Amino acid sequence: MATLTDPTVIPVLGDNKAVANPFIRCLVRLIRAQDSYGSWKEKCDTELLADFTVPEETRCAIPVIGDPDPGVLWRLDVFYRAVGVAIEERSGLLVLRTMEINQEGFGRVLFTTRRLVILSKTLRDVHRFGFSTLRKLANAGAKLVNDAARVIEAYPDVARAL
Amino acid sequence: MATLTDPTVIPVLGDNKAVANPFIRCLVRLIRAQDSYGSWKEKCDTELLADFTVPEETRCAIPVIGDPDPGVLWRLDVFYRAVGVAIEERSGLLVLRTMEINQEGFGRVLFTTRRLVILSKTLRDVHRFGFSTLRKLANAGAKLVNDAARVIEAYPDVARAL
Repeated sequence: MATLTDPTVIPVLGDNKAVANPFIRCLVRLIRAQDSYGSWKEKCDTELLADFTVPEETRCAIPVIGDPDPGVLWRLDVFYRAVGVAIEERSGLLVLRTMEINQEGFGRVLFTTRRLVILSKTLRDVHRFGFSTLRKLANAGAKLVNDAARVIEAYPDVARAL
Repeated sequence: MATLTDPTVIPVLGDNKAVANPFIRCLVRLIRAQDSYGSWKEKCDTELLADFTVPEETRCAIPVIGDPDPGVLWRLDVFYRAVGVAIEERSGLLVLRTMEINQEGFGRVLFTTRRLVILSKTLRDVHRFGFSTLRKLANAGAKLVNDAARVIEAYPDVARAL
């Protein structure tokens, strides 16, 4: 996690508007929930999210062989949990997330509610998970939530079937 | 894998009828497909399936702490793959299986096709995965396939939706 004096935080601080985005608010809430010892208490939201933003050139330089970094896997997990929570908040339905990633960084994430698959996404090159800017992170999350909401609208009965 | 001289094979050999079951045929086919070097060529089907049958007392004695045995995870994987293939054969639909197991042996397996969740099963005490007899293995598999077929019948449009 970046510290206050870390120079990488500076370009991110410009994205103050993105931090106010509902999806980002949800993501930050989930990250703060894991801070059992209060060690991130002094950090602002942009600092907490600093590791989610990786410049494209840096990302392309990460090798996709070998096991994905545990930090990347944690961020991937918390990102998709935030998507699930945001869908739940918007639809009022209970959403299950099932994520399967093999050691080569390929896999699938599924969001389901009762009999309906509301979102199914193939994961590729998990090693390089990250977004160029906070705004792109916010947009990616919001897009997934919107797609899911549209599917729930299209199949309201299946989403509530036993 | 048990050998020809292994005494544990003898009680299993009584289940000749179970081996002819369509689900068991599918399971055996998937196991034989992994035999790249032909080392299981000489083994009969009951021998191949010997490790799936664990007497109840032995199973209860397996501790559920620590990582599940890799052999158990392999059998769990091939069992649920066989369920998926059997559903595909019966319905003619493309079935996706997503399985998520944590290190404590808890998880979930989901079978989906397009927008429909055809089967969702919580996995518990994966360490102790096994069946008392071959017949019970055959019945467990067939029951899952039947449940899935019933769901596909109930939601034919969703199973074929884009």
